[in-house]
Amino acid sequence: MKLKPMDDRVIVTRLDDSTEKSAGGIIIPDTAKEKPQMGKVVAVGSDAPEGRTPLQELVKAGDTVVFAKYGATEVKADGETYLILSRSDILAVVE
Amino acid sequence: MKLKPMDDRVIVTRLDDSTEKSAGGIIIPDTAKEKPQMGKVVAVGSDAPEGRTPLQELVKAGDTVVFAKYGATEVKADGETYLILSRSDILAVVE
Amino acid sequence: MKLKPMDDRVIVTRLDDSTEKSAGGIIIPDTAKEKPQMGKVVAVGSDAPEGRTPLQELVKAGDTVVFAKYGATEVKADGETYLILSRSDILAVVE
Amino acid sequence: MKLKPMDDRVIVTRLDDSTEKSAGGIIIPDTAKEKPQMGKVVAVGSDAPEGRTPLQELVKAGDTVVFAKYGATEVKADGETYLILSRSDILAVVE
Amino acid sequence: MKLKPMDDRVIVTRLDDSTEKSAGGIIIPDTAKEKPQMGKVVAVGSDAPEGRTPLQELVKAGDTVVFAKYGATEVKADGETYLILSRSDILAVVE
Amino acid sequence: MKLKPMDDRVIVTRLDDSTEKSAGGIIIPDTAKEKPQMGKVVAVGSDAPEGRTPLQELVKAGDTVVFAKYGATEVKADGETYLILSRSDILAVVE
Amino acid sequence: MKLKPMDDRVIVTRLDDSTEKSAGGIIIPDTAKEKPQMGKVVAVGSDAPEGRTPLQELVKAGDTVVFAKYGATEVKADGETYLILSRSDILAVVE
Repeated sequence: MKLKPMDDRVIVTRLDDSTEKSAGGIIIPDTAKEKPQMGKVVAVGSDAPEGRTPLQELVKAGDTVVFAKYGATEVKADGETYLILSRSDILAVVE
Repeated sequence: MKLKPMDDRVIVTRLDDSTEKSAGGIIIPDTAKEKPQMGKVVAVGSDAPEGRTPLQELVKAGDTVVFAKYGATEVKADGETYLILSRSDILAVVE
Repeated sequence: MKLKPMDDRVIVTRLDDSTEKSAGGIIIPDTAKEKPQMGKVVAVGSDAPEGRTPLQELVKAGDTVVFAKYGATEVKADGETYLILSRSDILAVVE
Repeated sequence: MKLKPMDDRVIVTRLDDSTEKSAGGIIIPDTAKEKPQMGKVVAVGSDAPEGRTPLQELVKAGDTVVFAKYGATEVKADGETYLILSRSDILAVVE
Repeated sequence: MKLKPMDDRVIVTRLDDSTEKSAGGIIIPDTAKEKPQMGKVVAVGSDAPEGRTPLQELVKAGDTVVFAKYGATEVKADGETYLILSRSDILAVVE
Repeated sequence: MKLKPMDDRVIVTRLDDSTEKSAGGIIIPDTAKEKPQMGKVVAVGSDAPEGRTPLQELVKAGDTVVFAKYGATEVKADGETYLILSRSDILAVVE
Repeated sequence: MKLKPMDDRVIVTRLDDSTEKSAGGIIIPDTAKEKPQMGKVVAVGSDAPEGRTPLQELVKAGDTVVFAKYGATEVKADGETYLILSRSDILAVVE
């Protein structure tokens, strides 16, 4: 079973705190007003608007990303929880 | 009787919970704030704005989709209930 | 007497419930939050924005359409009641 | 004295009820939430945005139009009351 | 001393009531909800967006205009009071 | 030390009342609802959107400008107070 | 560990007050309503919309910038606190 994101959507699995620390040593402080979160990218939409970099050149399956949790929609499949984000929810890619 | 969606509209029939589980094993958690839903695509509008993928290349009749229920409009025809969605209501296609 | 709709306007006459049932067997459920309605198209504006299908290729006089009642403006002429809609109020065409 | 409307403005004189009835037999029902009105066009702006029909091809001085009263601005000149509308206030032209 | 308006701004001096009457016999009724005003154009910005008429072809220094008072910003220079308007505040030019 | 404004920003120093009067005799009336202010331009961003005049052709370092105080952000450097404005905050240039 | 900002995002580390003073002598007054802040740029997104200067030509890693704190999202990595800003949050670059 696979989910193919529409347009500018990106599907990620949330990385829990212990994972977060190992994934490049990043800690999201609890004090942040709109607390961002860490996720691992599962699939990326085909969004490629004129005058901007195609989404799939910026984020790839397997990437670890920092995202704003605001726009996230949660779905469960095969026992795994997925978050469906929009391109603008993704703040940075961890390299 | 057939409904032809206008512009960026997509018509789906809602998949109930038992159907949801069989359709790729996806479960939409009850705890999600804006609970997404599963549907089977019945018809797709001819939307093809400049600089974006034509809608009919992304979703086809028969596809199972995850959608945000927010924008859905409900109509009944021939004993069947249809939901009329906008392109942006569709989050992902189940493959 | 004839009304020619401006730009992206579409003029329809509302189909009452008995008519609705005969027009393809569609029933609009009373429980829908923003209840859509059925109408017969009387005239269509000349709207043809770049990168979208011209309005007159999508809807024609005589078509039965499902529309969101939100944007409708009502006028009476020659004993008949007309509704003036915008393109985006029209959700689907009954075929 | 003449008023030349700016951009997408259209100047009309309001048709009173008795005039309305004679102008094609149209009656605007009192029960409509945002009651539309009838007017006779006096002057039309030179609005011609890309990808849309130039305003002056759609409405001409002397035309009778149905308009939403919401955006109307009233001025008096030479004992006559004029309403200055925007293109989007005009719903239909009476033919 | 001279003020050169930025972009789509237009600078006018307000015409008082006695002047209004002489300037083409126009009277702005006191009863209008958002009462428009009359002004004499002093200077016009160089606004010329794609697909629209350049502002300086529509309004010229010396023109009498009807404007919505909503967006007006007032400045005083050399004992004279000027109003700085935006293009969209100007409803019509008196010819 | 120098501040280079981003995009459509313009950096000015505020002219006080005594300076205002000497700078072309302009007086900003206290009674204005959103009181505009006078400033001397220190630096101009490289903003040059399609279909509009490049910002640096309209305003230059040394110009005296009238601006709406609404969007101003204040910073202090080398004992001087600077205001960082957006292009749309600038209403007119004093010539 | 490195963060690569998405699209129009810029990652900075906040400069504290003592640093602020040394970085060109700029002091952000406490009295400012929306107090701007100083930061050192760590990484810049690849944003390059049509008709505007590419972001990476305006800001570079190592630059000191003045930014509006409104849109900042805070993340911690390797003991360092980073702020993820949008292009429009950056008001000026200190030269």
